[in-house]
Amino acid sequence: MSVNAPWLGARQAAQSIALGTMSSQAYVESLLAHIERREPTVRAWAHFDREQVLAQARWADAHTPTGPLHGVPIGWKDVIDCAGLPTGCNSPIYRDHHALTDAAAVAMTRRAGAMVMGKTVTAEFAASHPGPTTHPLNANHTPGGSSSGSAAAVADGMVALAVGTQTGGSVIRPAAFCGVVGFKPSFGMISRYGIKQLSDSFDTVGTFARSVDDTALLMEALTGRNDFANIQPVKPSRVVLCRTNEWHEADACMHLTLDEACRRLAAVGVATGVVDLPAQFGEMTRAHHVIEYFELARALQHEYLLHSELMSQPLRNRIESGLALDAAAYERALALREQCQVCIAQLIAQTDLLLTPAAPGEAPLGLASTGKATFNRVWTALGLPALSLPFGLGPVGLPLGIQLVANRRRDAHLLAHGAWIERLFNSTYSNNF
Amino acid sequence: MSVNAPWLGARQAAQSIALGTMSSQAYVESLLAHIERREPTVRAWAHFDREQVLAQARWADAHTPTGPLHGVPIGWKDVIDCAGLPTGCNSPIYRDHHALTDAAAVAMTRRAGAMVMGKTVTAEFAASHPGPTTHPLNANHTPGGSSSGSAAAVADGMVALAVGTQTGGSVIRPAAFCGVVGFKPSFGMISRYGIKQLSDSFDTVGTFARSVDDTALLMEALTGRNDFANIQPVKPSRVVLCRTNEWHEADACMHLTLDEACRRLAAVGVATGVVDLPAQFGEMTRAHHVIEYFELARALQHEYLLHSELMSQPLRNRIESGLALDAAAYERALALREQCQVCIAQLIAQTDLLLTPAAPGEAPLGLASTGKATFNRVWTALGLPALSLPFGLGPVGLPLGIQLVANRRRDAHLLAHGAWIERLFNSTYSNNF
Repeated sequence: MSVNAPWLGARQAAQSIALGTMSSQAYVESLLAHIERREPTVRAWAHFDREQVLAQARWADAHTPTGPLHGVPIGWKDVIDCAGLPTGCNSPIYRDHHALTDAAAVAMTRRAGAMVMGKTVTAEFAASHPGPTTHPLNANHTPGGSSSGSAAAVADGMVALAVGTQTGGSVIRPAAFCGVVGFKPSFGMISRYGIKQLSDSFDTVGTFARSVDDTALLMEALTGRNDFANIQPVKPSRVVLCRTNEWHEADACMHLTLDEACRRLAAVGVATGVVDLPAQFGEMTRAHHVIEYFELARALQHEYLLHSELMSQPLRNRIESGLALDAAAYERALALREQCQVCIAQLIAQTDLLLTPAAPGEAPLGLASTGKATFNRVWTALGLPALSLPFGLGPVGLPLGIQLVANRRRDAHLLAHGAWIERLFNSTYSNNF
Repeated sequence: MSVNAPWLGARQAAQSIALGTMSSQAYVESLLAHIERREPTVRAWAHFDREQVLAQARWADAHTPTGPLHGVPIGWKDVIDCAGLPTGCNSPIYRDHHALTDAAAVAMTRRAGAMVMGKTVTAEFAASHPGPTTHPLNANHTPGGSSSGSAAAVADGMVALAVGTQTGGSVIRPAAFCGVVGFKPSFGMISRYGIKQLSDSFDTVGTFARSVDDTALLMEALTGRNDFANIQPVKPSRVVLCRTNEWHEADACMHLTLDEACRRLAAVGVATGVVDLPAQFGEMTRAHHVIEYFELARALQHEYLLHSELMSQPLRNRIESGLALDAAAYERALALREQCQVCIAQLIAQTDLLLTPAAPGEAPLGLASTGKATFNRVWTALGLPALSLPFGLGPVGLPLGIQLVANRRRDAHLLAHGAWIERLFNSTYSNNF
């Protein structure tokens, strides 16, 4: 049995395995062959154990499916513990650090029958110092980060599903750059236990897939929530363009993209409009930094005390800034966030969705930076669910992403509307390069 | 140099070590001798490495103090990772699980110069199935839980400081039962990274000490926040008795205790009053269970998938209840909590502090249960800071505790008022048994 798996969706793969028309082993072998071919260029994987994955696939083939992802392998950002594999965090401090147990999110997907393909490259401790991953479409460009490997692996067809984390823009931004569907759920939607922490107030587990439907399937497995099962496309009644207070930092192609998206929605009878964020939202970027630095200085204190010489200079600087912060400054930032949360809940309640850039533009040239989280920080800070959908290509020929944002805890609602808009835009990822 | 350390406060001990009038080694040796004598009865410790503690003490004596807890050992609940020691979680699943790194809270105290005395007994995974710890004043009674060993060790004079966690009532209740000062800070005040998780929405790191001043010192170290340094007693202008909707579940002695506390405050000119919680707060106990079970079922999924036969039946039942819960029921419970948070913030804004029972009464007879969290769940669920102060003895001769609750993030304010009330009540712990 031979299959060409790299462009198969996770739902399709799981159904074929459950029906017995494809074995998990054949599926995995096809993905492994693709990875072998592409990995020297893309470098999406931090740790990989071919034999372990194949053993899991053979086990899956020998057992009756018990969950919706039976026999389907997932890529896990290398800050997430997977039993028996290292959790390297892209730091020499954790080079040989093997996880003894699975993170709760990993265990939830095993409960759904999924397997661990391997660990995907992260920026150092999910912050900003990048790993070696390249953009699957053009190796001279960054894939974005910090969930670089998860985004690139899904975009390249190495896996259908991958998991990452977002503290600033670490899921939505690389998903947009790589042209896949990225989902940062509401704060707290997926268990964070067993994942290296940066900021307890912001860290959110998120997903990468090549369709909204596969995103919903992965969310169902990760959360064990019945409201992610059977999500059907629902036409939104009203979508409002939110330029944010950082609109001037988006490239011209992103301005055009959002206008075009609005036009296409209006053309099929979706009410559209524009909403301005009150001035206090302009201070959220600074507040986000204050909260993040204050918290990561504490979360990474063990590493800082014992191994600061093995940290990148930018990370050391952030920790030292965080330790120098006054408690009152941290409290002011938290209070501003709470005010903005109340305000945005009222604003969004008047519409179904906000439409906003997923990133300033295409993936930047070079691997020294993973790009800017300008259009992500505020939504992460507010804890709102955000979905990135690919929407055409920019001047360099790399994908552009739009971001849909819904009210807090309205994740299933966002995915249902996102599925409808994805179909409208015909923007599901296809192997057209 | 010989000292009688068991009843020395942490501030006193740290100052003596810094001045050179007492060595850390002499201090630790005195504590170790006391532990050796008492541990066969109290059984406060899950893991203990005498030689490691003495080596740390000798290191402290050989180095110039760099922080406010230089040379002072702390007891850590056995769900908190301390590098080189096991994190046993009072579960056979983790019998031989050695932590490779320090939890962030442990690292923060090391930064302040503190040392790790050992791991204190916890109920299974910080839930309800108890460990072997007994009440220091009467070994036939429970010390409370789930932070049983931390409370008992501080009450017995084995350490001046210990750290625990509270998801329901796991810090305040054992502190009240054992007659020490327990502090559950606002949700999120102390980093939880490296601590076994039950409920991401509720889990809060808290402290045990024999005075409010030592509590503030430990909070300063744990958080690295400047607002916990130099907390001075401040007279509250208004303290309001909050009987909660579960008042009938408190023993008669607790009713009398709170009335007496109010009388004493009124006698020195503090305005007092009574506040009733709106009816919706009566549903918070059930909402707390829904949220806790939903989340712990996910947080402990790895253990449940692989080792459910090594779990206690009550814990297995909770996990299975949590997995069976509808997502909508979980969302309703979260929404109720948010409504109650808005409501309580307005209620408390009109006063300085709420006064409420720390527990239903004295520590119950027997070790099969750690007692009820009836008077703790709601404050944990709302994320409010809560301080337990000892206030006399009950009919069996065991301590009673009152609980002071302040508005969210007003932790320093609560400790300053708590220090003033502690002095008024002359209720600091003394070795009077």
